[in-house]
Amino acid sequence: MELTVSQYSLVYNMFSFAIASMLAAFVFFYTAQSQVAPKYRISLIVSGLVVGIAAYHYFRILHSWEAMYEYGAPFNDAYRYVDWLLTVPLLLVELILVLGLSKEKNKAMLPNLIIAAAAMIALGYPGEILPAGEKTLMGSYGLWGTLSTIPFVYILYVLWGELGKAMESQPDNVRVLFSNIRLLLIGTWGFYPIVYMLPMFGFDAGNSFVAVQVGYSIADVLAKAGYGVMIYSIARAKSEADGWSVGKA
Amino acid sequence: MELTVSQYSLVYNMFSFAIASMLAAFVFFYTAQSQVAPKYRISLIVSGLVVGIAAYHYFRILHSWEAMYEYGAPFNDAYRYVDWLLTVPLLLVELILVLGLSKEKNKAMLPNLIIAAAAMIALGYPGEILPAGEKTLMGSYGLWGTLSTIPFVYILYVLWGELGKAMESQPDNVRVLFSNIRLLLIGTWGFYPIVYMLPMFGFDAGNSFVAVQVGYSIADVLAKAGYGVMIYSIARAKSEADGWSVGKA
Repeated sequence: MELTVSQYSLVYNMFSFAIASMLAAFVFFYTAQSQVAPKYRISLIVSGLVVGIAAYHYFRILHSWEAMYEYGAPFNDAYRYVDWLLTVPLLLVELILVLGLSKEKNKAMLPNLIIAAAAMIALGYPGEILPAGEKTLMGSYGLWGTLSTIPFVYILYVLWGELGKAMESQPDNVRVLFSNIRLLLIGTWGFYPIVYMLPMFGFDAGNSFVAVQVGYSIADVLAKAGYGVMIYSIARAKSEADGWSVGKA
Repeated sequence: MELTVSQYSLVYNMFSFAIASMLAAFVFFYTAQSQVAPKYRISLIVSGLVVGIAAYHYFRILHSWEAMYEYGAPFNDAYRYVDWLLTVPLLLVELILVLGLSKEKNKAMLPNLIIAAAAMIALGYPGEILPAGEKTLMGSYGLWGTLSTIPFVYILYVLWGELGKAMESQPDNVRVLFSNIRLLLIGTWGFYPIVYMLPMFGFDAGNSFVAVQVGYSIADVLAKAGYGVMIYSIARAKSEADGWSVGKA
């Protein structure tokens, strides 16, 4: 695969952008603990873990990118998948926590969601690492993609429904935020399968590779840092609705 | 582009000065939380993010500078623009927060300002990366610069007006600070378009490059760290005006 200098730089700058965003989000989620009522702080703690793990992996990804360019080492796709294996279950936990469901409900739902998330990621990986030429719908690429989509749809179906149910009992300003996070969830998660499929659309290997890296980086920043900021807004609105105010401890 | 050793060192030392300033400001904004009333701490948290992101990018910029000198790698201008894309919206948030306007007012104003900021930065970039020889007023350089100036003027116009309105209702000592930050805002932001235009004034490529890097570094330290310290002073004066004192929790 041959890349032009500007293709190489674009991907490089996107990775650096992701690192800066994840690190800033990491600092924010820990320093902004004082801005929400104590019972919602665990959501921010988990949000901080997600972006912290992502920052680590983007450092590794950037390093792998430099090594590929400088001495032809193969680019390591596994970092993304290891990252997702760790962060997607945490993203689910984050959302479930801020929904404020009963403990029984959480215990019934969370293990299924986490197993589905692990299956989704593990089934996508064998397709992702196929060489560019073999990424066609009617081959093992299409098969792995399709298999991975089953748990993906299951997770979004469950979350969409639960967010809808949880919205009903919220005060107006919190309901708007729940509705927004539901759209953000569909919008950002929906981005990943599109990016996954890009190599199928007949771009040459270089363009398709660049598009996938840029696409995943943007999706990750939105689905992790952006999503965490939404969770923070919900936690803040709920704190106020509970009669709590900043400075109350 | 050929640089003399002293030109190279001057830029190198400016980058290092920026890193030291940003890191010190980062530590200050988080450790000085206890010095302002709880409701103003969010402004300091956001100030800390701005200088933290800037510190990250100045490390990268310095590294790119070394790589350029050591083995002729192209200097990466994108770091500044990615930095601004992240920090300018946060600088706007910081100022809006400390103005203490109503939630409705904030919601009406902030999205427009953030969109204008993104447009300003995105429109400036294509001009910035043109080769030195093509940086003339009557070309695409002048065009991008002019386009970028439109949202720039819009942002300053809105902020100038809002700061003016907010000043009226402040106690005397806070009013002075508001007046100062308004001048700092115009003074530091006004510096950027001047630096952007420097290559037009007929310096040779090397001098013009050095002037731009030194100019942006000084502007960044003032507009981020200096501006954050002003925000801190306002938060402190407002805390006192609210009857709050250090040690009160």
